Amino acid sequence: MTANNIDVMMDGLAAKARVAAGVLARTPAAAKTGALLAAAAAIRARAEAIKSANQLDMDDSRSKSLSNALLDRLELTDGRIEAMAKGIEDVAALADPVGQTMAAWDRPNGLKIERVRTPIGVIGIIYESRPNVTADAAALCLKSGNAVILRGGSESARSSRAIVEAILAGLAAAALPEDAVQMVPTTDRAAVGKMLTMTGAIDVIIPRGGQALTERVMKESRVPTFLHLIGLCHTYIHGLADPAKARSIVLNAKMRRTGICGATETLLVDRDVASSMLPPIIDDLIKAGCEVRGDEAVRALDRRVNSATPQDWDTEYLDAILAVKTVDGLYDAMAHIAHHGSSHTESIITEDRAAAEKFMDGLDSAIVMHNASTQFADGGEFGMGAEIGIATGKLHARGPVGVEQLTTFKYKVRGTGQVRP
Amino acid sequence: MTANNIDVMMDGLAAKARVAAGVLARTPAAAKTGALLAAAAAIRARAEAIKSANQLDMDDSRSKSLSNALLDRLELTDGRIEAMAKGIEDVAALADPVGQTMAAWDRPNGLKIERVRTPIGVIGIIYESRPNVTADAAALCLKSGNAVILRGGSESARSSRAIVEAILAGLAAAALPEDAVQMVPTTDRAAVGKMLTMTGAIDVIIPRGGQALTERVMKESRVPTFLHLIGLCHTYIHGLADPAKARSIVLNAKMRRTGICGATETLLVDRDVASSMLPPIIDDLIKAGCEVRGDEAVRALDRRVNSATPQDWDTEYLDAILAVKTVDGLYDAMAHIAHHGSSHTESIITEDRAAAEKFMDGLDSAIVMHNASTQFADGGEFGMGAEIGIATGKLHARGPVGVEQLTTFKYKVRGTGQVRP
Repeated sequence: MTANNIDVMMDGLAAKARVAAGVLARTPAAAKTGALLAAAAAIRARAEAIKSANQLDMDDSRSKSLSNALLDRLELTDGRIEAMAKGIEDVAALADPVGQTMAAWDRPNGLKIERVRTPIGVIGIIYESRPNVTADAAALCLKSGNAVILRGGSESARSSRAIVEAILAGLAAAALPEDAVQMVPTTDRAAVGKMLTMTGAIDVIIPRGGQALTERVMKESRVPTFLHLIGLCHTYIHGLADPAKARSIVLNAKMRRTGICGATETLLVDRDVASSMLPPIIDDLIKAGCEVRGDEAVRALDRRVNSATPQDWDTEYLDAILAVKTVDGLYDAMAHIAHHGSSHTESIITEDRAAAEKFMDGLDSAIVMHNASTQFADGGEFGMGAEIGIATGKLHARGPVGVEQLTTFKYKVRGTGQVRP
Repeated sequence: MTANNIDVMMDGLAAKARVAAGVLARTPAAAKTGALLAAAAAIRARAEAIKSANQLDMDDSRSKSLSNALLDRLELTDGRIEAMAKGIEDVAALADPVGQTMAAWDRPNGLKIERVRTPIGVIGIIYESRPNVTADAAALCLKSGNAVILRGGSESARSSRAIVEAILAGLAAAALPEDAVQMVPTTDRAAVGKMLTMTGAIDVIIPRGGQALTERVMKESRVPTFLHLIGLCHTYIHGLADPAKARSIVLNAKMRRTGICGATETLLVDRDVASSMLPPIIDDLIKAGCEVRGDEAVRALDRRVNSATPQDWDTEYLDAILAVKTVDGLYDAMAHIAHHGSSHTESIITEDRAAAEKFMDGLDSAIVMHNASTQFADGGEFGMGAEIGIATGKLHARGPVGVEQLTTFKYKVRGTGQVRP
């Protein structure tokens, strides 16, 4: 397609999405739930067709010698297809956010004011070759009453298309407009560039993918975004930490899954308890296959610890590597986090409640924790249901982005003829 | 200053603002209140100095033959200086939003999750030559725990500087960092361009001024913004309206103040009640000095009504002009508003509650009203205290932007050693 054709095509897509959004905004909860349950059923019923489409994507990707990590993310097994269907059912079971009263109050002149949740409108999702994002994103947007324009990676185009077909069957079963879930029908990168300029037509853009994608969106987008930059999360062992809690939390925070944004990347430990608390923790980590990089004080405790360089304090490994630094108490730890952190998630391990409150009050991170693993930084673990990611920006959505974060609000003002003096 | 000097200067300003924001975020409510009350007292104590500075601004502006409207906005009288001081005291008296628990819940694994209001950080305000915005904006940002960078119009530079000096005296009296309120010390327009690129250093930019300023900010800003585009507000007289309510509300909605964004610009009226309801309304408006522009059906009712052109349905007059159109019932009215409106504020006049609810549910405007004047679209009238404007965007802040809208939130997670399975 020429750039002009892409512009025209995308404008048409967005115009249809806006009309569908108007319908969805007034669709009762039961109809949206019905569409989601029908979509889940359609995904199960079409599992073979989805796998066939995925097989073609996999074959192409193998012939292009793409990395094993990418192939793994791309592959749809029976288990993963069932998980997608179950994920849509979980979203269907969530409380409908639209129409919820967020606040209500009366004015002295008798006006009754109510703040009510409403859908945002049209949401653009730009993602890489993870076909399951197609199902997750469509389900969350539909539940929250938004139309969605999906722009997936080229390697997963056929898989995503097969999943979208199942979701469209769900929409049709509930007599909802199929334009509520649209996929950009070209993998031309110019379509992404166009999306990022469509202020007014697309209300918010959410990129789901690696740093290169996020940075492109951050740099280019004229449309508001919910971005996830990096998750350089810290766990801090305070001088009054319980050693057993510290040991189990650190191992979990680093090693449960190393590739998620809530994984701890830097461990801070108070200097005066380093020699008593760290040795078993380092031993656990190394036995679990983690490389430990430490400052001089840490290296003195275990000769298997590699030397940390200044760059380590600023690195999100997303891997089985942990940087460990000794600090001089609470404020030194907080200063390190404020300087090197990404304002994502930080946890303090301590039995001193006052220190924990100072830590949680003083740090400007989306999630601050006391005696818990940073791996809990997740919408599902927060009880918010499925999420489309963790936003590291401060406005509108911060932390897990679930159905509530995909809504906005309006004010309803009910009077009896009041005029303003 | 050279462009490079401006860059360096602005970067320095923002760095100091970030440090001050860190202090303000942890400042108890009482200290912020104390600073605001001291600032109000300083404005009163320095009234003569402020008037002298303003006189110089006025003299310059007169010599440049600026418009009377601009001169009026620029002028500071004793009454306006007292109103500024009182406005700061009103903000001081508001509930402190920072630290408020927005939600709290427990998870089955024992984690206690709390969502707590926090300041946004560093706010940039770009405004035109209304010196009172200096006081309003500084007070609202301070109350909400944010540092602010003020960039006022060149015509009011000396007036604004004198007001900032009084506010700095208030900060000093409460031992708060003076860098919490900084004014850009140059009226070079390049400083505005620089501000709009300072992602990460400035968290949100709020323009206060005419459409040219807002459009520049919308077009250029890389920093998130709270924008007020236009307020093309509608009042709709439904077939089951109470004629007396319709009459008093329409006159007020249009004529109480014609220059505010909540003023009604277009009146819609059901065709079958136009001849019974409109004549006294048109008569009231014309006697009050309003030009009425109507479609053919409206003109047939009163020969003083001018002919409306299609452009009238898309015009925010901000003046004593009202466009009047007959419509074919509720859905025709809603379709007109959806097509021509600015999603700001719309009001339905009716005794039919079901019609009112359909109107309020069906329109995607920040504020929807039943039997009330659109002129109530105002943070003060909503009971939110002072506001920095009405946001017409959908994300984070929508409608009046008061101290709550100048905050964000974080999650505090309190555990007892939990790890994620």
